[in-house]
Amino acid sequence: MNNTDIIYGRNAVTEFLRSGRTADKAFVQRGEREGSIRKIISLLKEGQIPFTETDKESLDRLCDGKRHQGVVIRAAVRDYVSIEEILERARMKGEDPFVILLDGTEDPYNLGAVIRTANVVGAHGVIIPKRRAAGLTATVMKVSAGALNYTPVARVSNLNQAIAKLKAAGLWIVCGDMDGTSMYETDLTGPTGLIIGNEGAGVSRLVRENADFTVRIPMRGEINSLNASVSCAVLSYEIMRQRTGKKPEVKA
Amino acid sequence: MNNTDIIYGRNAVTEFLRSGRTADKAFVQRGEREGSIRKIISLLKEGQIPFTETDKESLDRLCDGKRHQGVVIRAAVRDYVSIEEILERARMKGEDPFVILLDGTEDPYNLGAVIRTANVVGAHGVIIPKRRAAGLTATVMKVSAGALNYTPVARVSNLNQAIAKLKAAGLWIVCGDMDGTSMYETDLTGPTGLIIGNEGAGVSRLVRENADFTVRIPMRGEINSLNASVSCAVLSYEIMRQRTGKKPEVKA
Repeated sequence: MNNTDIIYGRNAVTEFLRSGRTADKAFVQRGEREGSIRKIISLLKEGQIPFTETDKESLDRLCDGKRHQGVVIRAAVRDYVSIEEILERARMKGEDPFVILLDGTEDPYNLGAVIRTANVVGAHGVIIPKRRAAGLTATVMKVSAGALNYTPVARVSNLNQAIAKLKAAGLWIVCGDMDGTSMYETDLTGPTGLIIGNEGAGVSRLVRENADFTVRIPMRGEINSLNASVSCAVLSYEIMRQRTGKKPEVKA
Repeated sequence: MNNTDIIYGRNAVTEFLRSGRTADKAFVQRGEREGSIRKIISLLKEGQIPFTETDKESLDRLCDGKRHQGVVIRAAVRDYVSIEEILERARMKGEDPFVILLDGTEDPYNLGAVIRTANVVGAHGVIIPKRRAAGLTATVMKVSAGALNYTPVARVSNLNQAIAKLKAAGLWIVCGDMDGTSMYETDLTGPTGLIIGNEGAGVSRLVRENADFTVRIPMRGEINSLNASVSCAVLSYEIMRQRTGKKPEVKA
């Protein structure tokens, strides 16, 4: 783990990519294709790091006007882990795995809030997709209120492959969706992967189809959607409640 | 209700204040004290509208460089209601009142998220304090995802007086707090006022003392706090679950 957020310049970027550390995204100056830039682009492809072509002015802004030589990397504030490491964490604690999967949460505030909640409910890790999703930036760290220091995050190229891997490890995949069964009428105990949809579009079709079941948060108001991080918290707390077998012991 | 957010100029501001519409806050140019400004200040005091003295440049920014003549008002995007109107809403629906009180939520994102959640869980209204708290700005409307059009908000000078009024109307006042009894072990049915604390400081001492009981959200992670809007959602859902008598009907 380190706190550098932005790496720029051809040498620094090449060293960074060779070190195997995790980059969130790369920005390459439009049109630049000679020599060392070409090598950097092949390293990016090798590491499956998403990159965008952009103009010089945007690169200048990204690194506060420093000498970027046409390439800037935005690094994760915290290194990503593998899915196996998340599952291992559950094993070490002697608990049934509880993993939260985000299907494209683009808002860093939501990602930070989800990581914070994941920690508080005792989830073993969070899985996010590589594309069209917020990465582990300084904002996410701040919003997570420090939870990012404890709760590991895996970043995957393909969420459906990650789901298959979790299923193979014995997890039940639960997908939050308006059309599902009420969360109060669903058995949410046992090894669980909980999928939370994107703020706008919800859970994508294929991901929903790959889930073992879909659960609905009951709603009683005029509007019928919750913020992604709030949905995550409400479903996670129902999972935690069922897991710990807490029936309401109502006081007289 | 209307969508104007900023009113400026001495005549417009005077008319606005005389109309009885709700202002969030007023800004008066430092040193300006003659004639009509003096009259405006007395109208502000009469209406218990908080105001700040500030420099000309800040006023220019607030109204995008338009001719403000030393006074600018930030109006609520939605008019505030009275506590009685919130209780009346519960009566009309034939439901036990469920009111959410925010003890100084300064972040408009949190306020918007709380109003969104309040609507979804079927709360009858939200009560916020006048000072040191976010008002109903355009940001709050946006973050509430339209919930602000349905869920009424009362703004009070003194939260403890509001609590006394709710108690007199038969509500139990529940305060979210780390030192309370687990929410699963507390009877949260019946007419309820739920107090959610400020992001940083939690619930203030006097407010906590005025509550009938304090409830704790169980936590299992390394960090031990949730975002204010997330806390509000988790507690509200437990209230809703207990109210609707939803025991988990676990599937085989």
